[in-house]
Amino acid sequence: MTSESTQSVEQAVIAANDAFYRVFAAKDLAAMDELWAQRVACATVHPLGELVLGREWVMETWELIFQDPNQPRVVMGDPHVAMQSSESAYVTCREFASGNALVSTNFFVLEDGAWRITHHHSSPIVMLQG
Amino acid sequence: MTSESTQSVEQAVIAANDAFYRVFAAKDLAAMDELWAQRVACATVHPLGELVLGREWVMETWELIFQDPNQPRVVMGDPHVAMQSSESAYVTCREFASGNALVSTNFFVLEDGAWRITHHHSSPIVMLQG
Repeated sequence: MTSESTQSVEQAVIAANDAFYRVFAAKDLAAMDELWAQRVACATVHPLGELVLGREWVMETWELIFQDPNQPRVVMGDPHVAMQSSESAYVTCREFASGNALVSTNFFVLEDGAWRITHHHSSPIVMLQG
Repeated sequence: MTSESTQSVEQAVIAANDAFYRVFAAKDLAAMDELWAQRVACATVHPLGELVLGREWVMETWELIFQDPNQPRVVMGDPHVAMQSSESAYVTCREFASGNALVSTNFFVLEDGAWRITHHHSSPIVMLQG
């Protein structure tokens, strides 16, 4: 693999991560459903939340989140891609929502030529000791 | 791939996850170093913590954690493997430490025939609303 093709693969993963946050902001459940992998196990951990295992349960949490009028807008920045294999990668990035700084790990797999998310784990940064 | 070989691959990932928590409990920095991947980007998010990017920084956080006399013993349970490709997988599991329930996502890649950890993201479960 040339450095050029590596770069374009990484750019494709970054674009998939961007799409995730764009759909999140749009609260578009059908579009969110299309972003998640179909053939590998999906899971998510929302901030300070329980482990959500399985695609169906994951999508139910997005439905609740999108229906919640108090759900804050989340903005993402500083994404870093870590390729794990030619068909799997994770992105670490930062989120900002309601005055809270969070960090997020998002995992992606290549399915039918598209990078689809399989896992989203988001957690706030909290100063524990002075 | 037969279901038998799939099972043995998943068992190998579970064993790598078990080893991570065994070494964590033993506070063995040299053994922890051997568990982390050498050829893909490493990262970690400790509970409520900042994003830690890069193998060197990750290992420095383990050194601090292992040196901290107030670091509680962490016990792990309920691991679930999600194969992402033949050479990458994540394990979701639960942690219990100092009366706190946490969830963790640990990513592994197959390097030189061994499953090595590339990312550890742990966060507490907190009841936000009654």
